[in-house]
Amino acid sequence: MAKKLNIGLFGFGCVGQGLYHVLSNSKGFTANITRIAVKDKNKPRSLDAGIFTFDKYEILDNPEINVIIELIDDADEAFEIVKYAILKGKHVVTANKKMVAIHLKELYELQENHNVSLLYEASTCGSIPIIRTLEEYFDNEQLNKVSGIFNGTTNYILTKTISEKISYNAALKQAQEKGFAETDPTSDVEGFDPKYKAVIIALHAFGVFAKPEEVLNLGITTLHENDIKYASEKGYKIKLVPTVKQTKGSVSVFVLPKFIRHENPLFFVDNEFNGVIVEGEFSGEQFLKGKGAGGHPTGAAVLSDISALSYDYKYAFKKLNQLQKNKVSNDVFIKAYIRFNTAIDLDVLQATQVYEQYTSENYNYVIARVNILDLLAQREYILKNNLFISEVGEEINSVPVKTQDNEAALKAVI
Amino acid sequence: MAKKLNIGLFGFGCVGQGLYHVLSNSKGFTANITRIAVKDKNKPRSLDAGIFTFDKYEILDNPEINVIIELIDDADEAFEIVKYAILKGKHVVTANKKMVAIHLKELYELQENHNVSLLYEASTCGSIPIIRTLEEYFDNEQLNKVSGIFNGTTNYILTKTISEKISYNAALKQAQEKGFAETDPTSDVEGFDPKYKAVIIALHAFGVFAKPEEVLNLGITTLHENDIKYASEKGYKIKLVPTVKQTKGSVSVFVLPKFIRHENPLFFVDNEFNGVIVEGEFSGEQFLKGKGAGGHPTGAAVLSDISALSYDYKYAFKKLNQLQKNKVSNDVFIKAYIRFNTAIDLDVLQATQVYEQYTSENYNYVIARVNILDLLAQREYILKNNLFISEVGEEINSVPVKTQDNEAALKAVI
Repeated sequence: MAKKLNIGLFGFGCVGQGLYHVLSNSKGFTANITRIAVKDKNKPRSLDAGIFTFDKYEILDNPEINVIIELIDDADEAFEIVKYAILKGKHVVTANKKMVAIHLKELYELQENHNVSLLYEASTCGSIPIIRTLEEYFDNEQLNKVSGIFNGTTNYILTKTISEKISYNAALKQAQEKGFAETDPTSDVEGFDPKYKAVIIALHAFGVFAKPEEVLNLGITTLHENDIKYASEKGYKIKLVPTVKQTKGSVSVFVLPKFIRHENPLFFVDNEFNGVIVEGEFSGEQFLKGKGAGGHPTGAAVLSDISALSYDYKYAFKKLNQLQKNKVSNDVFIKAYIRFNTAIDLDVLQATQVYEQYTSENYNYVIARVNILDLLAQREYILKNNLFISEVGEEINSVPVKTQDNEAALKAVI
Repeated sequence: MAKKLNIGLFGFGCVGQGLYHVLSNSKGFTANITRIAVKDKNKPRSLDAGIFTFDKYEILDNPEINVIIELIDDADEAFEIVKYAILKGKHVVTANKKMVAIHLKELYELQENHNVSLLYEASTCGSIPIIRTLEEYFDNEQLNKVSGIFNGTTNYILTKTISEKISYNAALKQAQEKGFAETDPTSDVEGFDPKYKAVIIALHAFGVFAKPEEVLNLGITTLHENDIKYASEKGYKIKLVPTVKQTKGSVSVFVLPKFIRHENPLFFVDNEFNGVIVEGEFSGEQFLKGKGAGGHPTGAAVLSDISALSYDYKYAFKKLNQLQKNKVSNDVFIKAYIRFNTAIDLDVLQATQVYEQYTSENYNYVIARVNILDLLAQREYILKNNLFISEVGEEINSVPVKTQDNEAALKAVI
């Protein structure tokens, strides 16, 4: 039978309020939120003041509370709370992707050593049950790749700028008004948020701990009208696509924009929706789509984790145990569209193996072969010089047409 | 730790052979196929003869075998095997949707009473983990509707006839050559196969046992060129769509063709692929897509069930326990396109509330409001008179424009 859960909640924003409402009204549950820790002493609240506390230890040190739900923004403070709770033997549900990704190995060890369950479905792709599906359904299947659209904010902005031809700033403003984007959108638009999710997925799909700082994230801040025009002419949509893939025990993880065509199911994932493609050796291509941003989808994922806790569920990390030889390596090449200013840019990125090149008075681009490690090393350079880089749909199998000749020709032109 | 599984396998077709191969080579597994029961004594086999038996009781009465995998075609024989195995205390994995759907209540009771696990992910939508996702992820979420494309064979035929303009018979032949369709395709093309899957989903999504005979299944055998032309002109694709939905405790289950537009994610599910849309109160619309036909996707689902068994997994049937007041009722109205011969057809189907009507020398159709129970009662009539009926995308909220006048006008014309 289901176990009785006494829950201490941290954070009472829109997800927290929705959760409280659902848990109070659901018959299926034997879970109660008994205390709620909040920060702002002056904010009016919808519940009786007695349930709130401003002292986190009133919850963390309360032996009657056996589950902590952590829904605050600050990743450092969240980690303190979660770590303390685990050390106290409490189970934890969190939606904080940054905190989970940065401390993934330590959190894994903590929950193993203290025999508690730490669940974080809500941290990754909103309402799509991707962590659970990887853990429980693909646990014995050899996976080759997991990719997708993991960030609702940027997908909303890209949809509006590309399909509806409105400006980047207008689209960002709309996203903020709809509650999909934060006041400071850096984490989304520069691709940090989907990177954290890719790091979490890398553990559950391929059994590796990738450090966020060794994972490339290029976002959409340097996207220009000319890039959109190029993509549209070629029948592409531009999406921000994290990729986690495995080749002979080497796992690469990177996030950058990607040109995709209608054969790719992500082509039809628009607005605030997220989509995940799981490529299995045996099962073929699986595609999952659901809402990626907003309080309700996140709340649904948290709810599902709470429900799992009541049945003593715990991630088994089977891939970590099976694939002990897997290693993170981002020394991989991709085929990319690079909008650049001068030939120096291409030298800096070591993008000298060129499939196509275009120069004009307005702008220049190449389709070239580049190494993820080179892009990672030059991330600041790329942003400072306003270059736009996008993976081109097809995987690299062919040898580029580059020769000394066309390289020299390219330099001569620019 | 994972439990050691000694497996007795029934059936050694393409799924069985693939499974044997994977289980023999996988390191993650502590599962071995120790005996295989087959029928044909003269067929050459790829394995040593010693592993095969032609007597099912050699497996079923063997106390060392603790798991049965049932992969034979015949639903009656499969039920005998599965029931006997459960009575002997063995866990069972099956891919047989017909057998599971027809005996769903008895199988549920058997596995509860004998404390064994009966898993059947492979019976429903190939490689898409829909049963597991409903059981484990949406277990405490109020669901409103589950619908989709559950049959790869008909979807392949529809894709080819609509998008590639080849004939129904040519498309069916192609599907058979590719191994997606049986020699006798009745179960697929008349919609029995997706009906069985809808019955299984109704239990895990809404906690009801729907009897297959009380569920309408209209297939694609009466699809005509004019229907395809109509749909194409209006921007529709035609898909065979099972619907399972709940309104105030009444659960309706039916299978019929549906006209859908590109806003619906099923629009992009083509060829042998399956897709499932889960509509949750809290999580919004979830969409899952994967391969629905063929040995490998089925094998992947069986493999995942075997893996779950090794961790003592068992369906918890939480919806059945939570939603005890839910009842099956197919007394619901849909908006449908009906290609008919004479006004008598519309009388028979009680399709007198008409939104649109068209008559010509070539063919006649109405868009009308019809009750699923009337279609169920007149299924034979519909097939005999070669009528084609397809749900029209939008749900019924509006009141039809029908009056005595236009009904009279309609009859006068025909």
